Amino acid sequence: RIDGARLWSTILETAAFGATPAGGLNRLTLSPEDGQVRDWFRAACEAAGLEVRVDALGTQYALRRGRDMSLPPVACGSHLDTQPTGGRFDGVLGVLAGLEAMRSLNDAGIETEAPLLLVNWTNEEGSRFAPAMMASAAYAGEFTTDEILAKRDAAGITVAEALDAIGYRGDEPVGSQKIGAFVELHIEQGPILEAEGRTIGVVEGGQGIAWFDGSVTGFESHAGTTPMPRRRDALLGLCEIALAAERIALAHGPSAVATIGESVIGAPSRNVVPGRVAFSLDVRDPKSGTLDAVEAELRAALGEIGTRRRLDIDLTRIWRKEPVPFDPGLVAAVESAAESLGLSRRRMVSGAGHDACNLAAKVPAAMIFVPCKDGVSHNESESATQADCAAGADVLLHTLLTLARG
Amino acid sequence: RIDGARLWSTILETAAFGATPAGGLNRLTLSPEDGQVRDWFRAACEAAGLEVRVDALGTQYALRRGRDMSLPPVACGSHLDTQPTGGRFDGVLGVLAGLEAMRSLNDAGIETEAPLLLVNWTNEEGSRFAPAMMASAAYAGEFTTDEILAKRDAAGITVAEALDAIGYRGDEPVGSQKIGAFVELHIEQGPILEAEGRTIGVVEGGQGIAWFDGSVTGFESHAGTTPMPRRRDALLGLCEIALAAERIALAHGPSAVATIGESVIGAPSRNVVPGRVAFSLDVRDPKSGTLDAVEAELRAALGEIGTRRRLDIDLTRIWRKEPVPFDPGLVAAVESAAESLGLSRRRMVSGAGHDACNLAAKVPAAMIFVPCKDGVSHNESESATQADCAAGADVLLHTLLTLARG
Ligand SMILES: NC(=O)NCCC(=O)O
Ligand SMILES: NC(=O)NCCC(=O)O
Repeated sequence: RIDGARLWSTILETAAFGATPAGGLNRLTLSPEDGQVRDWFRAACEAAGLEVRVDALGTQYALRRGRDMSLPPVACGSHLDTQPTGGRFDGVLGVLAGLEAMRSLNDAGIETEAPLLLVNWTNEEGSRFAPAMMASAAYAGEFTTDEILAKRDAAGITVAEALDAIGYRGDEPVGSQKIGAFVELHIEQGPILEAEGRTIGVVEGGQGIAWFDGSVTGFESHAGTTPMPRRRDALLGLCEIALAAERIALAHGPSAVATIGESVIGAPSRNVVPGRVAFSLDVRDPKSGTLDAVEAELRAALGEIGTRRRLDIDLTRIWRKEPVPFDPGLVAAVESAAESLGLSRRRMVSGAGHDACNLAAKVPAAMIFVPCKDGVSHNESESATQADCAAGADVLLHTLLTLARG
Repeated sequence: RIDGARLWSTILETAAFGATPAGGLNRLTLSPEDGQVRDWFRAACEAAGLEVRVDALGTQYALRRGRDMSLPPVACGSHLDTQPTGGRFDGVLGVLAGLEAMRSLNDAGIETEAPLLLVNWTNEEGSRFAPAMMASAAYAGEFTTDEILAKRDAAGITVAEALDAIGYRGDEPVGSQKIGAFVELHIEQGPILEAEGRTIGVVEGGQGIAWFDGSVTGFESHAGTTPMPRRRDALLGLCEIALAAERIALAHGPSAVATIGESVIGAPSRNVVPGRVAFSLDVRDPKSGTLDAVEAELRAALGEIGTRRRLDIDLTRIWRKEPVPFDPGLVAAVESAAESLGLSRRRMVSGAGHDACNLAAKVPAAMIFVPCKDGVSHNESESATQADCAAGADVLLHTLLTLARG
C-alpha cells in the first residue's frame, strides 16, 4: 500500500506552483509556473532514484530500473498542466500517485522484473495550445514533432518558443522512449462515482471529441443609428449558434455535449454593432456516429442562421478524436487490483480526453478513476478526498506490480 | 462659400493619423494617434491665425477674434477621435469644416462682430472610456473634472494618465471657456438623407441613450464531463440576453435600438463551460418612456433567464442621456442657411449622441447633417461625398455668420 498522507502532502506541495486566490491552479502548459512544477518534479524523481529524460516536446520520462532492462517499461503518469480555472487534482493526481508508487516501492525494497516509467505529458489540457493531449498524440504518431512545435497560442507564441522559454525542449526524439503498457490514474471529473458511492472507476475507454474553430462575419455599424432590421450583428449570430448547439446536443442526450468555451468580438466597442466574432466549439459523444450527426445538424442550423441574418459563418474542424476502447486485458488487470484491495468499483467511459486515450493506439492502455466532489472539474473548487486519492494510488501500484511482475 | 477642394484635401491629410489597412481610422481618444492629430490641429489653427487653448480634459479651443471681444464666441466643432473600426468623417468633418470656415473668412477678409470658436472635444466616441461625449458633458456641468479624470479604460488606465501620456492635460478649467452658441456639422450616420436624395439634415434634437454594464455568473465546469442539464453556462445566458434585447427593441420599433457591443468571457478555455461573462448594453429611443419600458422588459427577461439557467445576472446602468431638443431659434437659423444656399433639406432627429447634445444644456445648440453612403458609420468603409461635405460646411459658415453678425 502507498503512503496516503505522503501523497496528500505532495499534492499540497505542488499546488503552490500557479496557485490562485480561490484555491485552484492556473498553470497553463509551458508557462513559467509549469516550468517551476517541472523543475520540482525532476528533482523529486531524482531524489527517488529515477533517471529523468525530456523529449523534444518537453514530456518528462522518469525511469525506475527493473531486473530485466530488455523489457519495455510499464508506464504510468498523467500531466501537471492545468486549465486557467483549474483545480489541484486534474492530471496532478496521476503524476504524483505514480511518484508515490515509486517511493513506496523504494521504501519496501521491491524491485520489479520490467522497469517502471513515470511520465508527465506536455499540454494535456489543450487550453493554451490546441489540440488537447498534444504530446501523447505525437508520441503515438498522430502528429509529427514539427507539426506540434509550430502550433501557436492566442498570443502567437509557438510551442517551440514556449518550450525554449522555460528550457524544456529536450533531446529525446518523440516516440523513442519504449513503453510496454500505460496506466493512468485520474479524478473522474464527472458525478457518477460520487453519486453511486463507489471508490474506483474501471475505465473501459474514452468518448469521441471534435474541436472546431468558427467565425461569424457581419458588418460593423453604429449602435445608435442602425435600425434593428438593417443590422448584420455577428454577436447575435454567435448567440443563435450557441443556443442551437445546446439544443442539438440535448436532442442527442443524455450522452452528447457541446460547448462554446471561447468567443471573442473583433474590435469591440460599446456603441458598435459587432461585425466579427471568433469562437471555439467542443462536441463529444461516446459514439462516432453521434459526433457526425451533431456536426451535420449544426451545419444545417448555421446555414439557416447565416442566410436569415445575412452573416458569413465559417466552421472548421481542427481536431477529431474517435472514441477509444482500452485494452481489455489491462482493464481487467485494473479491475482485479481494485477487487483484491476490496474497493467498490464500476466500469465506465471517460467523458474527458486523457493521454491514455492516445497511448491506446500504440500500447495496451487503461485508466483508473476516483470520485471528485460534485463531479466538478476545470474549476478552481475541484476537490477529491485524501482517502480516495490513496485508494486510487493503491490500485495503480497493484496494477503496475501485476504488469511488471514485481 | 467655403473651398470644398481644400476641405476635402484636409480630410484626406488627417486620415493619415490612425489609418487602417481597410481605409478607415482607428484613432481612439488620447491614443498616440489622437495625440498626433491634435498636434496637427493646433498647428493648422495657429497657421489660420487662431489662438489655441487646452482645458483640463484635453479639449482644444481655437479662437478667432471678433470686433466685440466682450461677446461670447459663436462656436462650432466636433471631435477628432474615432471608433476602433472608425471612418474618416465621423467627427472629423465637423472639426475640419470649422477650420475651413475660418480659412475662408480669412481669405475673404471678413471680420465678425462676435468672436468665433472652433472646438475639438475629447472622447466623443466613448469606446475607450465611457460615457461617450465625456468632455462636453463635463463642460456642461454634468460631471466634475475629477470624476472624468478618474474614469478607466479596459486596461485600467485613467483619463488623467492618458491625457498626461500625450501631453494634453491643459491649464484651462473645464467650463471656463465662454460659448454663446454651438453649431455642429456631422455626417448623418443613418440612411434617411441618402434615401430621400436630400443634402442637408436640420437636426431638431438627439434621441435618448442608456448605457449598461452587465455580468453573467454561472459555474466553470468540464466541457467533456458535465451533462448539458447540469451546466450553469454563463455564455448561454448572455446569448439569451442578447436575443431578448433584440426582441424587445424590435417590439418597440421602428425607433428603439439595443446593442451588445462588448462581451468577454472570464478565463476562457475551449474545454471549459464559461463561468463568467461581462458585457455592455446600449439602448436608445427618441422617447424617454421607451427607454424606461425597454429597460423594465429587459430586467424581467433577465430575471427569467437567470432563474431558469441558475445564473446570477447583474445589469448596472452606468449612463443615461435623456432625449435632447435643440434650440428652436438656432435650428431655424440652420434651416434658413440651407434655404438661402438652395440646398434640399429635411428636419430630423439624431440617432447618435453628439457633443452638441451636451452643449444644449448650457447654450443654444443645433446640428447640421449631411448624407453618408448607405447610412453606414462606425465602420471603416464610412463614406461621404466631397460635394455633400462642402454643402454642409457652407451651411455651417452661413449659420456662424448669421449668429456672429459677420
Ligand atoms: N482530463 C482533462 O480534463 N483533459 C483535458 C482534455 C479534455 O478532455 O478536454
Ligand atoms: N456621433 C457618434 O458616433 N458618437 C458616438 C456616441 C454614440 O454612441 O452615439
